[in-house]
Amino acid sequence: MEISTHEIMKRAALVKREIALADSGLKNRALCLMADCLIEDCDKILEANRKDAEEAYGKMSSVMIDRMLLDKSRVEAMAEGIIQVTKLNDPVGRIISRSERPNGLLIDKVSVPLGVIAIIYESRPNVTSDAASLAIKSGNAVILRSGKEAWRSSNEIASSLRRGLEAAGLPKDCIQLISDTSRESSYELMNGVGYIDLLIPRGGAGLIRACVENAKVPCIQTGTGICHIYVDKYADIDKALSIVDNAKTSRPSVCNAAEVCLVHRDIAETFLPKLKKRLVYDRIKEEKIPVELRGDESCAKIIDIKPAGEKDYDTEFLDYILALKIVSDEKEAIEHICAHSTGHSEAIVTENEQCARLFTSAIDSAAVYVNSSTRFTDGGEFGFGCEIGISTQKLHARGPMGLSELTSYKYIIHGNGQIR
Amino acid sequence: MEISTHEIMKRAALVKREIALADSGLKNRALCLMADCLIEDCDKILEANRKDAEEAYGKMSSVMIDRMLLDKSRVEAMAEGIIQVTKLNDPVGRIISRSERPNGLLIDKVSVPLGVIAIIYESRPNVTSDAASLAIKSGNAVILRSGKEAWRSSNEIASSLRRGLEAAGLPKDCIQLISDTSRESSYELMNGVGYIDLLIPRGGAGLIRACVENAKVPCIQTGTGICHIYVDKYADIDKALSIVDNAKTSRPSVCNAAEVCLVHRDIAETFLPKLKKRLVYDRIKEEKIPVELRGDESCAKIIDIKPAGEKDYDTEFLDYILALKIVSDEKEAIEHICAHSTGHSEAIVTENEQCARLFTSAIDSAAVYVNSSTRFTDGGEFGFGCEIGISTQKLHARGPMGLSELTSYKYIIHGNGQIR
Repeated sequence: MEISTHEIMKRAALVKREIALADSGLKNRALCLMADCLIEDCDKILEANRKDAEEAYGKMSSVMIDRMLLDKSRVEAMAEGIIQVTKLNDPVGRIISRSERPNGLLIDKVSVPLGVIAIIYESRPNVTSDAASLAIKSGNAVILRSGKEAWRSSNEIASSLRRGLEAAGLPKDCIQLISDTSRESSYELMNGVGYIDLLIPRGGAGLIRACVENAKVPCIQTGTGICHIYVDKYADIDKALSIVDNAKTSRPSVCNAAEVCLVHRDIAETFLPKLKKRLVYDRIKEEKIPVELRGDESCAKIIDIKPAGEKDYDTEFLDYILALKIVSDEKEAIEHICAHSTGHSEAIVTENEQCARLFTSAIDSAAVYVNSSTRFTDGGEFGFGCEIGISTQKLHARGPMGLSELTSYKYIIHGNGQIR
Repeated sequence: MEISTHEIMKRAALVKREIALADSGLKNRALCLMADCLIEDCDKILEANRKDAEEAYGKMSSVMIDRMLLDKSRVEAMAEGIIQVTKLNDPVGRIISRSERPNGLLIDKVSVPLGVIAIIYESRPNVTSDAASLAIKSGNAVILRSGKEAWRSSNEIASSLRRGLEAAGLPKDCIQLISDTSRESSYELMNGVGYIDLLIPRGGAGLIRACVENAKVPCIQTGTGICHIYVDKYADIDKALSIVDNAKTSRPSVCNAAEVCLVHRDIAETFLPKLKKRLVYDRIKEEKIPVELRGDESCAKIIDIKPAGEKDYDTEFLDYILALKIVSDEKEAIEHICAHSTGHSEAIVTENEQCARLFTSAIDSAAVYVNSSTRFTDGGEFGFGCEIGISTQKLHARGPMGLSELTSYKYIIHGNGQIR
């Protein structure tokens, strides 16, 4: 039975007060039962995932298919992720601040759920359980709009989670997956004024742009990551090699992977040949996919390299491709990053504190690293339990969004007849 | 010389890093000089205001003209408002949280300016100085788009403030007023992707709807206030009379004024005649404008009253008009408010703690009052110094927005070669 997107929004509105007022004990009990149901339904989920994957072969790149593939350990990791969320503090009902005014008014600023959160995502089915568990823990109803290519997997996961909610005595409509995977349903969510308190698009640049340009409901821009690593002249070469390797190759399909490496002119002749050995020759020896290096003319004078076109510095490759550029100083690196960054994550590799300080203060991105990989921009790595997305805008939330980023607040003011 | 809106956005982008990196001392010095310049330019400002007002007579209601009128004391209050802002803590550069992860990464969450803030407002020229001073203190460049009817006043005020900035050695383009008061300039701001980090519309429902529906840049919905006062059966009648009177008549043209009063059936026969005496007969005796009361049929059985149509419960009158409705219990009051409120401010008058608790937890508005006037929803009254608007949405900021609501944050992560 297919339910319209409008009906789904109406149902969320009906149940949102119940989940908003649920106490921590009840929400945690529901989360545990949701995790149990996922494990119980593992075979069904993997079966649905196999069907999704079979249909995707040939239509999607291998890197994109990797993003949607599940196996037993990934399902277990999803369940474990939910259990981790139960251990986190309840973000709702916290007195953020309290003040007594000279006229005797007592003003409490108290955290409250946002209400109804809608998430539009693409092909990573684990988003279904991450998003749902964080929404429930933060007292929000959630509407999930999965990509067509992973819909069967998401649907099995959502059914499991809804079963868990019901077993805990909460309305299952606090978690709903939209049946309609056409563009129409996304536009209905973007226009859901009065129903949707927050819309989070998670996916490619096209989806995010469509949401930002069309949404009439509050929306958070997430994820597109053209992440830079600047290898300073004071860099420790071994650290730099290992950081660039990790940031590029450990999981090239995700948004915190590096796409561009800027190298200080003074160390380029030492660094670039070693980088090529590490990312190309060593990987071939190890029977791994080598990284395709693209570089500017100065790079080509040092190593044999494919020339980089202008748009190579503005592309989220999400693949084994790295754009290289030689810069004459840190200032040029900062200017290049400010002009080409998507505001996600950037790193400097340097042993010089002053260079590090200049970089961290001048770079205006969600996460700015010194001597570490951009791959750490992640709710789990930041200690949030898991994450609902990585915001690349500055309003409301920036960087990995965990539980408290899914709440708002209200002021409760107690008086004794005060007038103004 | 008229400068295009696009050129203004480009200039803001050029200077935003300079104001973002200015330290507290420099910003406070600039604010003091801005206040000095306002006082020095008082005559010029009042002269411009007189021209604005002369043109407005006959075209606008007297209540609306009151909103734009300045006199010496109002200009002094604007300057004093700026001085108050210097005394507030700098919201930028604060370490919001710091954590060391098991892998040794040190993660700092640091407050930073938003960047460029654009404000579209209507006829209250004091918004020019309030908004500009809060933007400067929080390290943001600001673009002001004043309503046509008060443009001359706003322009004089903005010129003064820019003179103050320059005297402090900061770029005057950190504060810019748009010359074009046609709708076109508002749409340019709404579409200023890459230039505008936050758009705040302050004004009537039409302006706010236009921004929310059309903005491609992050936007905060402000201000429309259909504020309710619920007089419970356990109300202290004298407190209730004084709170309703204050909330309705102390300044009916502002968004935190009450528009609707809900009265518990059990006390209606006592309360309503007293309310009519207070808001109508007493005011006539005191040669004040009497309040026009509109009520449902149950009210009409108790007092002689103009009948309320359905839309009277969904109108921000901004005038001496109050809609009355009798409810059979607190639950009905809460349901009426949830259905008709704009999420701004609501109050309950009751001596019963349980009723107060139910009301404050069930009502989902920015400010929920017990035994006090809705008129307190204001940055100054909340202790923020002054305010840039009152958010009625739940994302980023809710209720009065002061300095910290004009900042974002970034994560600065220090490592020693960590990879994932």
